[in-house]
Amino acid sequence: MRVRRCGLLIVMMGPFFLRLLLRGLLASSLLLAVVRAQTLADRLGYPPGTKLIIVHADDLGETHAVNAAAIKGLEGGTINSASLMVPCPWFPEIADYAKSHPDVDFGLHLTLTSERIYYRWAPVAAGDKVRSLVDRHGYFKHDWEANDAVDAKEVEIELRAQIERALAMGVHPTHLDSHQYRLIMNGAELFAAMLRVAHAYHLPVFVTRDWFAEHPYLQASLGPNDLVLDHTVTIEPEVPPQKWADFYLTALKNLKPGVTEFVIHPGFDNEELRAATRERDTWGAAWRQRDYDFFTSEQFRRVLADQKIQQVTWRELVQKAPRQ
Amino acid sequence: MRVRRCGLLIVMMGPFFLRLLLRGLLASSLLLAVVRAQTLADRLGYPPGTKLIIVHADDLGETHAVNAAAIKGLEGGTINSASLMVPCPWFPEIADYAKSHPDVDFGLHLTLTSERIYYRWAPVAAGDKVRSLVDRHGYFKHDWEANDAVDAKEVEIELRAQIERALAMGVHPTHLDSHQYRLIMNGAELFAAMLRVAHAYHLPVFVTRDWFAEHPYLQASLGPNDLVLDHTVTIEPEVPPQKWADFYLTALKNLKPGVTEFVIHPGFDNEELRAATRERDTWGAAWRQRDYDFFTSEQFRRVLADQKIQQVTWRELVQKAPRQ
Repeated sequence: MRVRRCGLLIVMMGPFFLRLLLRGLLASSLLLAVVRAQTLADRLGYPPGTKLIIVHADDLGETHAVNAAAIKGLEGGTINSASLMVPCPWFPEIADYAKSHPDVDFGLHLTLTSERIYYRWAPVAAGDKVRSLVDRHGYFKHDWEANDAVDAKEVEIELRAQIERALAMGVHPTHLDSHQYRLIMNGAELFAAMLRVAHAYHLPVFVTRDWFAEHPYLQASLGPNDLVLDHTVTIEPEVPPQKWADFYLTALKNLKPGVTEFVIHPGFDNEELRAATRERDTWGAAWRQRDYDFFTSEQFRRVLADQKIQQVTWRELVQKAPRQ
Repeated sequence: MRVRRCGLLIVMMGPFFLRLLLRGLLASSLLLAVVRAQTLADRLGYPPGTKLIIVHADDLGETHAVNAAAIKGLEGGTINSASLMVPCPWFPEIADYAKSHPDVDFGLHLTLTSERIYYRWAPVAAGDKVRSLVDRHGYFKHDWEANDAVDAKEVEIELRAQIERALAMGVHPTHLDSHQYRLIMNGAELFAAMLRVAHAYHLPVFVTRDWFAEHPYLQASLGPNDLVLDHTVTIEPEVPPQKWADFYLTALKNLKPGVTEFVIHPGFDNEELRAATRERDTWGAAWRQRDYDFFTSEQFRRVLADQKIQQVTWRELVQKAPRQ
């Protein structure tokens, strides 16, 4: 019925309307192509072809071993951004550091899971207000099962509680991202909750065009003022330990123009981190030591210089995009 | 008015009443003296003069370094009892151990404070149900100020939540004690809350006669079925590190008959524990390593044998006192 009525309408409006419609479609396709060809770096006014990277350490606050490694990497200058897990036990240590180092580019690594077994954490919001996020012992769930109903309203309560605690403890985040990409990869509703909170606090969210094809709701949810990075690189369990540096070197040598965030997980392979992550090797103590070793190495510095790759922080991106 | 009326009553009742009253007072004083002379060991049927000690590690669950040291001490056999802090991040690790080692003498170290600065924890109960226990960031208070009103009803809610989480995670405690003695040294109301919860779960509470003089409400609150240890020994900050072993050796050589709990704080002086306790030396990493070193030493084993000191657990005490 609807289709028929629409067809009738076009016929009634005649050839003039059709020409107008076609022209409009053509114009918007061209515009879209231009926007797509432009990188974030182009739009922020960097010279064409500029290659920018954020070397971003995840999971600060989770353990002391991660805090200590990230701080050392940040102070060495090769790691230049990081994000903090507010619900975790060692958040006070990194919040104290952030407070006394207000220029460091710290975001919040919004956390909704407690993915380890021997060492766990719970929501910042009162447990009875975020029931869909906690297990029967009161911790964040270890994982989200397919039939778990995660309530987007409760997610928003918890995200706001995390940001409020961070602010109250003297952390002024430059950006928001999502631990284990839970808020990115789990549908439009959770991403919308994250985006609502981000807009309320005037913070950019880590999203990259790389994810748009697989998760079209990301692009659909974003507005013209939202920052969207061009690419991201993160190492996966398939890479064997002896190929660790090769993986990153290859990625850096093939880096595309625009802004790329390297999501890395530095940590010290010590007794604490080994114990905390002992149930599996993925993102474990040895993994994190390998990340620390590569991203604080002379080899890494050299490839940045050789490839003319510039480092950029979230703070700098936001400053270049004043409408954010 | 009341005094006058009472005097009048006695005069009216005459000399017979007075003799009766005096005899009654005398009898109850004698009974009290006999009870006082009896140690818990005597009452539980040990031969007269028996010296029993519980070598009790505190603060399990607080950090991995404390868990690891306590487990090693318990498996070595010289440390024979311990208690677990349910709200702490490493509780899942020690709960898992307790579950797979059901014969180990584990109690719960009921926790109402988060006394460190860089590493913190929050209540098990929903924060909005225990408002008098939390600071503005949602953690347990760092300390209780003189004008802090700690609500005994909220304390009871939190204690029950800690016990319920422990039970649900497979820990079957043999006793209850109080982190930083908060429930012991802060008045009759909080001790009553602890005792109510202990009775509800049929668990003994760590109390010793040593504390009765300073805190008379302890004795007044206890019933005839409550276990009361005879003595306790714990090292204090006044003891210099080089006198650590001397302090314990002297205490062991002068041990009185009865049941004495040595409250100790073993831990490994590693990066994690140093970071977690770095704001002060008291009960810090080096302190805990000294406790671990002494209580797993050959010297300690030898003095136990020389002084004919037997070790006893809370489980054994309860088994000997079947009405508990």
